[in-house]
Amino acid sequence: MLISKKLPFNYLFSMIKVDVIRVFLFSLTFNFFKFFFNDYLPSLPAQLPTVLGTAISLGLAFKLNHSYDRWWEARKIWGSIVNDSRTLILELKNFINPEVLGFEETKALLRKVAFRQIGWCYAFGESLRGRDSRATILKYLIPAEAGFVLPQSNKNFAMLDLHMQDLKKLLSQQAINPYQQVQVDNTINRLTNAMGMAERINNTVFPVTYRVIIHFFIYLFLIILSLGLVETVGPLEIPILIMTATTFFLIEKTATYLEDPFVDMPTDTPVTSIARAIEINLKQLLEEPNVPEPLAPEDFYLK
Amino acid sequence: MLISKKLPFNYLFSMIKVDVIRVFLFSLTFNFFKFFFNDYLPSLPAQLPTVLGTAISLGLAFKLNHSYDRWWEARKIWGSIVNDSRTLILELKNFINPEVLGFEETKALLRKVAFRQIGWCYAFGESLRGRDSRATILKYLIPAEAGFVLPQSNKNFAMLDLHMQDLKKLLSQQAINPYQQVQVDNTINRLTNAMGMAERINNTVFPVTYRVIIHFFIYLFLIILSLGLVETVGPLEIPILIMTATTFFLIEKTATYLEDPFVDMPTDTPVTSIARAIEINLKQLLEEPNVPEPLAPEDFYLK
Amino acid sequence: MLISKKLPFNYLFSMIKVDVIRVFLFSLTFNFFKFFFNDYLPSLPAQLPTVLGTAISLGLAFKLNHSYDRWWEARKIWGSIVNDSRTLILELKNFINPEVLGFEETKALLRKVAFRQIGWCYAFGESLRGRDSRATILKYLIPAEAGFVLPQSNKNFAMLDLHMQDLKKLLSQQAINPYQQVQVDNTINRLTNAMGMAERINNTVFPVTYRVIIHFFIYLFLIILSLGLVETVGPLEIPILIMTATTFFLIEKTATYLEDPFVDMPTDTPVTSIARAIEINLKQLLEEPNVPEPLAPEDFYLK
Amino acid sequence: MLISKKLPFNYLFSMIKVDVIRVFLFSLTFNFFKFFFNDYLPSLPAQLPTVLGTAISLGLAFKLNHSYDRWWEARKIWGSIVNDSRTLILELKNFINPEVLGFEETKALLRKVAFRQIGWCYAFGESLRGRDSRATILKYLIPAEAGFVLPQSNKNFAMLDLHMQDLKKLLSQQAINPYQQVQVDNTINRLTNAMGMAERINNTVFPVTYRVIIHFFIYLFLIILSLGLVETVGPLEIPILIMTATTFFLIEKTATYLEDPFVDMPTDTPVTSIARAIEINLKQLLEEPNVPEPLAPEDFYLK
Amino acid sequence: MLISKKLPFNYLFSMIKVDVIRVFLFSLTFNFFKFFFNDYLPSLPAQLPTVLGTAISLGLAFKLNHSYDRWWEARKIWGSIVNDSRTLILELKNFINPEVLGFEETKALLRKVAFRQIGWCYAFGESLRGRDSRATILKYLIPAEAGFVLPQSNKNFAMLDLHMQDLKKLLSQQAINPYQQVQVDNTINRLTNAMGMAERINNTVFPVTYRVIIHFFIYLFLIILSLGLVETVGPLEIPILIMTATTFFLIEKTATYLEDPFVDMPTDTPVTSIARAIEINLKQLLEEPNVPEPLAPEDFYLK
Repeated sequence: MLISKKLPFNYLFSMIKVDVIRVFLFSLTFNFFKFFFNDYLPSLPAQLPTVLGTAISLGLAFKLNHSYDRWWEARKIWGSIVNDSRTLILELKNFINPEVLGFEETKALLRKVAFRQIGWCYAFGESLRGRDSRATILKYLIPAEAGFVLPQSNKNFAMLDLHMQDLKKLLSQQAINPYQQVQVDNTINRLTNAMGMAERINNTVFPVTYRVIIHFFIYLFLIILSLGLVETVGPLEIPILIMTATTFFLIEKTATYLEDPFVDMPTDTPVTSIARAIEINLKQLLEEPNVPEPLAPEDFYLK
Repeated sequence: MLISKKLPFNYLFSMIKVDVIRVFLFSLTFNFFKFFFNDYLPSLPAQLPTVLGTAISLGLAFKLNHSYDRWWEARKIWGSIVNDSRTLILELKNFINPEVLGFEETKALLRKVAFRQIGWCYAFGESLRGRDSRATILKYLIPAEAGFVLPQSNKNFAMLDLHMQDLKKLLSQQAINPYQQVQVDNTINRLTNAMGMAERINNTVFPVTYRVIIHFFIYLFLIILSLGLVETVGPLEIPILIMTATTFFLIEKTATYLEDPFVDMPTDTPVTSIARAIEINLKQLLEEPNVPEPLAPEDFYLK
Repeated sequence: MLISKKLPFNYLFSMIKVDVIRVFLFSLTFNFFKFFFNDYLPSLPAQLPTVLGTAISLGLAFKLNHSYDRWWEARKIWGSIVNDSRTLILELKNFINPEVLGFEETKALLRKVAFRQIGWCYAFGESLRGRDSRATILKYLIPAEAGFVLPQSNKNFAMLDLHMQDLKKLLSQQAINPYQQVQVDNTINRLTNAMGMAERINNTVFPVTYRVIIHFFIYLFLIILSLGLVETVGPLEIPILIMTATTFFLIEKTATYLEDPFVDMPTDTPVTSIARAIEINLKQLLEEPNVPEPLAPEDFYLK
Repeated sequence: MLISKKLPFNYLFSMIKVDVIRVFLFSLTFNFFKFFFNDYLPSLPAQLPTVLGTAISLGLAFKLNHSYDRWWEARKIWGSIVNDSRTLILELKNFINPEVLGFEETKALLRKVAFRQIGWCYAFGESLRGRDSRATILKYLIPAEAGFVLPQSNKNFAMLDLHMQDLKKLLSQQAINPYQQVQVDNTINRLTNAMGMAERINNTVFPVTYRVIIHFFIYLFLIILSLGLVETVGPLEIPILIMTATTFFLIEKTATYLEDPFVDMPTDTPVTSIARAIEINLKQLLEEPNVPEPLAPEDFYLK
Repeated sequence: MLISKKLPFNYLFSMIKVDVIRVFLFSLTFNFFKFFFNDYLPSLPAQLPTVLGTAISLGLAFKLNHSYDRWWEARKIWGSIVNDSRTLILELKNFINPEVLGFEETKALLRKVAFRQIGWCYAFGESLRGRDSRATILKYLIPAEAGFVLPQSNKNFAMLDLHMQDLKKLLSQQAINPYQQVQVDNTINRLTNAMGMAERINNTVFPVTYRVIIHFFIYLFLIILSLGLVETVGPLEIPILIMTATTFFLIEKTATYLEDPFVDMPTDTPVTSIARAIEINLKQLLEEPNVPEPLAPEDFYLK
């Protein structure tokens, strides 16, 4: 997630470099043509760029809206992961009857589940970003459980299975009552849903035809605008066109980046930072030592 | 679901072939008229195409928005099918008391329900696409149950009934407690809802009058634009009009394809691929052998 | 719900007949004036129709959006009625302990509730459309219950009360357990909600001032457009104006029809057809004879 | 809620009287200036009103959209009050075991709760409209309870407390079981939520700066449009400007009225009429005598 | 939250001072240039400001829509905090069996939880606004509990843990039954969610690139508009441009302020006032003395 109010100019420029250079080239060509073969350039009616400009603006607004919705839904999903991680440990801490298991064993169990949940958050962020989560799983899970999780293709689903197995054991030991089991099961179901929802956004490509058309449409608009401007304005057309193109392409790229909120870029959802916040919360709740600091932003974004 | 970043040009062109040829023909006719009977062509005021262009752009934006919503809702429904299929088996696995039924029989029961759920997903995708799901049902259900399901018109509803019957039996054997039965019933209710929601999208035609009007409106706009351009631009009008028409028709067609997200076309919801992902998850959870590979995309889309 | 891809031209034309004739008359008048008193017609600046055209297009887009939302919400409500009707019978079938009541009586009870639910669906559709539902109630309810329901003003609410009374009796006979009663009560609550939601849409008029303004605004726009066109285009103005007016009025009417999704017109929600689908599902679930066929569309729409 | 299809012209005109007169005055002034000091009037470029017109149309569309959403949410909240009032009494009627309290006392209790709920609906509507609800409370509550409710500042919250106290007593008498208590508590929670949601809309002012800007913007637009029209059209400018202004101001006012859906005006949510419908439903359910008629509309609106 | 209908002019002006002065300076410069070097100013085609104006209006509409959604979601979250605070105390008051703990101790416990919840609301508002909440916690919590809460980084989460601990104790004393514990746990979960949701809005920056582009785009539009106007209108261009710029910048700033609804400015969510309303409700419910007055607005806004 970008955080800096002063975005590095380089970053913004690198987003649209190629497109702007292309625009520069064809507007240069049109000016060149105008200079040498003035009469051969067609005179376009003024209303054409207006019509196309309105259409392309609406097209971009549509793209921006739905990209923003994908991005915001992604952030909401991770917000619900924060909530449900907190709820999970809060419930277990205050549901388990310590007299059944004894104070020490209860504490150890809570610690095990909390670390597994912390690991789940980090590992899920990594898997969404297409990274390897094995090191994380080995760090936060006890060896026996890591051995169960690692061979599976959906490692996060396997960790939720481990939560459920602990719950089953707690019920059979009567350390929790049947309503409490069902209540914690609800919390785990919400984690299952959050996982599926994030996977859905990650696996569903924004309609490809639309992406292609809108990009082509911006070019069509800029070419026709350039033809119109070269008639009336002359060489000054070049900076005006470049600035207009810059704005349209930056809006398009902003939308395109929001479309894929888990792709391991500066604009994505700050899943590592959120997982860290969960780690801090859960460790403080269980009065664990070694509570880490919140993740500091890198340069102009939060990871 | 289209996935390729490089869409085949043929695919895009085939979407709008007929419409673009029509546009080509009438713009050719207008140019022909202009050449021979210049004086008889009316001179249209510049503002008319602008007004119509704004109106048609807003009309397309409306269509695109609601088509996108239908498509995205369809994808969400299948996302919830993923979540609830996982939850169903996760709950049953960790609710059933193995001491009641014995370890082997419990495992067999879980296996039977999981296969039925996998079959449910494939068969539901097939029925949405208007295909025959009988082979799938015979493959994933035991013969007695397939015999119960096959004669019914809503086969997927019948499979959910089988889930409920197993639940009833488990309760009467006291292998699960009453809260657990109600909790799994909630999961099955969500599957019933997902089924009904997908059927709703599939059976509800996007307002037909609107579809017709917007198509007619694009033609009206293009004809008037063509009349205006032929005046000022001459023969160059033809490529400009064709490119403009291409963009508008592509946007219209993109929307029309999104409207019906289960019609067995390259743009539809990848239900087979999602069902395969569920199969992998459930089989790994139950430590089944013969876990299949994820479905590979065909050419430029995922089935 | 309109279904035919080939809408009868008569149907479309009858929607906007009056308005289009009015437009024809005033554009004829303007042409007449232009012919005889050319100098007395004011020359309107080109930007005025553009401004009004943009405003009216946005106004129509707003109307269309919210009308569509009402229509789609209506369809969703009936979708949830499908789901909850299925869930209700699925739950009762698999919750009731047949050993308590005996196999035959259980089957009779299930049959009675299912028929009442089928009757509820038909009768609710009829009452939304302002029709008499007494014949339906007499057909699907046993006489004693019909006698309880018929005198009440909200007959559908009374039928839900009968569901609840059966539930109460089942609990007192211990044929279901307390969690199951509460679970089925949840399903009935959802039916209560669906009923209230459909009544809300039916009883809440779309903001009347807005309806009036937008209609007046379209006329204002067409008159000013006509004045502008008559200047530059002459008699050809008439067909152009008529076609433009046709499109705007058709969009307005489409929206107006979507606003009231239960008014017993070809464009409304196909409640009879949905109720029939529920009847088929529930009867097949209970292995009833005499399962009817799905409702066939009439001409170009589904009832 | 406005209901009449034929809105009185006076009502519409009174909404925008002041604004339209102001527009009339400045357009008159501009015409006067043009007549006497033609040369001193600046000639504005045609594109300026177009740009401002598009901006103002989008600004109004935004305002209209969110005002509509507030109005529709208000209506949904009262729809849910209908549903939960019905559910509350339906549940109590079919949960309470009459053998514990005796048939007569059960009936009396149900009657007391139902009347309290009816009173709650009327009183809540009155308090939202800023009226005194004491008479209503004295009418529908028994004296002892009215004495508990009246001194409190949030009288509706106090009435929900009374519902909860009855529930507590029913549980301690074992007239309902613990699951039923929790289930009815859910229904009461939804009523608490509906209450808070309606208060939220009532207490949250639509962003004030935006209200001010959009009003100022419409004037800016009309002044510039007037300057442009006076150049080209002359005195005919006055009726055209007035009609355009009327439309824009009517749309603005429609939105402003929708923003505050509980202000005791003809356009607000018909809370009295809804409360009456609830009264009819609940009294018929309990087979009470003296069921009132539905509230008849006053003139052109429903109260 | 702004409340006054008469916003101080100073307040509005201070929002956009810097931007308007910049616009004044460059329009002055262009006029100066025009006066001295008339021929060197390029003549821009009329359609360019129109195209850019449409694009920028759509861009602002997008920004305004999503900013409004953030602001309204923030208000909804605090609305749900009101509802769940009321529900929490309503449930505890009517769930706890007073015979177990004795009347006095029950009252003391309820008082302790209610004060903690009131403190939670105030402290959460303060922490969202980046203020120190320690004084508040010391005021509303008993010393032992304050000692537990103060060292933690997420103090509000710690207070919810205290709620859960009380619940656990009540269950082990059998002052509430297991269903009631789970039911109150649901209420506390909703408070956990509300907390996480408000934190999400507070921590998630509105897409930074978009903020930057839209601001740059408004300048681009105003410069080009100024160049166009200086040609045709002359010095009168300055007030027209300033007024147009004022409107666009005010809309932009209104959106920017809505984006961050918890930043301790006059436009933010009135969390102190809401917390006060909760305090009044809960104290009256428990018949506490010293019920405070509702928070009075400061000048033109509510804190």
